[in-house]
Amino acid sequence: MANPSILILPGDGIGPEVMAEVRKIIDWFGAKRGLTFDVSEDLVGGAAYDKHGTPLTDETMERAQEADAVLLGAVGGPKYDKLDFAVKPERGLLRLRKEMDLYANLRPAQCFDALADFSSLKKEVVAGLDIMIVRELTSGVYFGEPRGIFTEGNERVGINTQRYTESEIARVARSAFELAKRRSNKVCSMEKANVMESGILWREVVQKVRDEEYPDVELSHMYADAGAMQLTRWPKQFDVIVTDNLFGDLLSDLAAMLTGSLGMLPSASLGAPMKNGRPKALYEPVHGSAPDIAGQGKANPIACILSFAMALRYSFDQGDEADRLEAAVETVLADGLRTADLMGPEGGKPVSTSEMGDAIVKALDASV
Amino acid sequence: MANPSILILPGDGIGPEVMAEVRKIIDWFGAKRGLTFDVSEDLVGGAAYDKHGTPLTDETMERAQEADAVLLGAVGGPKYDKLDFAVKPERGLLRLRKEMDLYANLRPAQCFDALADFSSLKKEVVAGLDIMIVRELTSGVYFGEPRGIFTEGNERVGINTQRYTESEIARVARSAFELAKRRSNKVCSMEKANVMESGILWREVVQKVRDEEYPDVELSHMYADAGAMQLTRWPKQFDVIVTDNLFGDLLSDLAAMLTGSLGMLPSASLGAPMKNGRPKALYEPVHGSAPDIAGQGKANPIACILSFAMALRYSFDQGDEADRLEAAVETVLADGLRTADLMGPEGGKPVSTSEMGDAIVKALDASV
Ligand SMILES: [Mg+2]
Ligand SMILES: [Mg+2]
Repeated sequence: MANPSILILPGDGIGPEVMAEVRKIIDWFGAKRGLTFDVSEDLVGGAAYDKHGTPLTDETMERAQEADAVLLGAVGGPKYDKLDFAVKPERGLLRLRKEMDLYANLRPAQCFDALADFSSLKKEVVAGLDIMIVRELTSGVYFGEPRGIFTEGNERVGINTQRYTESEIARVARSAFELAKRRSNKVCSMEKANVMESGILWREVVQKVRDEEYPDVELSHMYADAGAMQLTRWPKQFDVIVTDNLFGDLLSDLAAMLTGSLGMLPSASLGAPMKNGRPKALYEPVHGSAPDIAGQGKANPIACILSFAMALRYSFDQGDEADRLEAAVETVLADGLRTADLMGPEGGKPVSTSEMGDAIVKALDASV
Repeated sequence: MANPSILILPGDGIGPEVMAEVRKIIDWFGAKRGLTFDVSEDLVGGAAYDKHGTPLTDETMERAQEADAVLLGAVGGPKYDKLDFAVKPERGLLRLRKEMDLYANLRPAQCFDALADFSSLKKEVVAGLDIMIVRELTSGVYFGEPRGIFTEGNERVGINTQRYTESEIARVARSAFELAKRRSNKVCSMEKANVMESGILWREVVQKVRDEEYPDVELSHMYADAGAMQLTRWPKQFDVIVTDNLFGDLLSDLAAMLTGSLGMLPSASLGAPMKNGRPKALYEPVHGSAPDIAGQGKANPIACILSFAMALRYSFDQGDEADRLEAAVETVLADGLRTADLMGPEGGKPVSTSEMGDAIVKALDASV
């Protein structure tokens, strides 16, 4: 059997330098755990525009469709701000998400004990936090038609359409229930069924999928505004949260900020299973391309490394090895290693991007 | 000139008992500050249904339209859960908002120093917090047409329509800028202009109103998901936030939860100016009718009392007297008085609803 394949798209800004650390990790798993991947690399975003005049070529798109997993760094930078909308770096990422039909966006909000002080929330509220928000990513009010700015009488009106079909709701609900089975078997679905018909259908379909296909998973429903409150009050009450594109946009960012360290957070965007049973999958850090610190060895590679841990877990069914990698990250943090973004008011000397990567490799070595 | 009029609608559950304390405060301002109001009282919600078979009679609706300010307690309770949708207690409140066309919902998030420990956020993040969210309340995706659950091919689709006209945006923007002039002259407008055309129009119109009518007010724009993050990270960066119905629904509840004490929070819903220059206005606490503790003297009357302070400020142009009332509340809290909902883990003996009201009257006495 051929090795599973990973397409790496480092992108712009700090993308290449954090991805270089991920390469070290991938190599480690090949050398020490017999997990060998066919790794190839290509361009996306401004880097692709600079070479090809487009943020994503058809050839790269095709390679992404064929890869078992795509690992992306970050895209964008001030150099590209004035470009036409159609060739902006972000369009490369959006094309990937759209053509791969990545409908389930997995946004973990995890708070490492060693970093709990970075949160604006009290330590006991966030220490050990480990929740997962599943956001529907390909439909809803950001995509529905009709949309636009129209003239009515003597004024203009801005219109967008929230729109969900039963099958769109059912497939992302299944993603959430599958995740729950690997975690605490508990899902909370959020919408505004009290004032939106799309929310009524959402609630009904999620409940039906649970009753017919996942009777062992505990399902609750919450209005999205109450969800925002409860995430703020006591986030540990949740495990998996499933919600639509718009509510997920706000709630996943809110949950990320609870942890206090955005530079630490990975994400996965998953689509339908391919022929080999693996889901279409794109993994990327939540943080951006940080052009202000690019090329200086200051970037924190952990979010990108944890994105690879998610790939191990969700694309390659290597949950134990994902645990190992996450534990290695936890170890170096507990040892006090900090990149510049993690320096607290107490000061100290930050480590460089590659020193952080090397330390994680060393912790992996110690784990076997 | 006739005295300004206030229509009191105590409603259900704890509504009547918290409103009884507000009556003491209103009486105090008449006796001690020469601010005499024509106060009348009527039924709304379940209480109206019990007597008239409807949660709001046409006569009460008419009186509300004519009042200079409406003060509402709370509506609803388990006794009415099985009623037809059209006569549920909440319909009375919705009818008031709709027929009075109360398009600007003012939701202050204030954190009294004495209660900062109740927040899930660190004390330094929330102590002294004083922000105001202005939520558009009569349009947007909760009201737009088409809406419903339809059949397409062999499945159903849930549809709602986000819809804002220029004039709807402009009028609520004006409410926010007017408020800013009484506060720190600073407004942040939130939408999702990056992915929604209704957000693009929102941003453009808010900016235009500011440039043409309020050039001295500092205006910034933020995407609503970033807004959720920033509210969580460092809420004191904001003063007045203006946003649409849906984003305001989530963000105002999030901001309320930052303070940690929902039982303390008032609200105002304002419409267009009446002939006398006063806006149509409904004031009510954010909390609900709390049927589980109704009639036991356990309810916290402060949110309802602070709603009257908002009436003093926004309907009767008595900002100094509103300050006086808010300071009196702060005094009793600093003195350690706590109703049952404000008892911390350290325990102590809670005061009753009327003891809290009496203490605030006493603090008012001491202020003159
Ligand atoms: Mg977002
Ligand atoms: Mg709400």
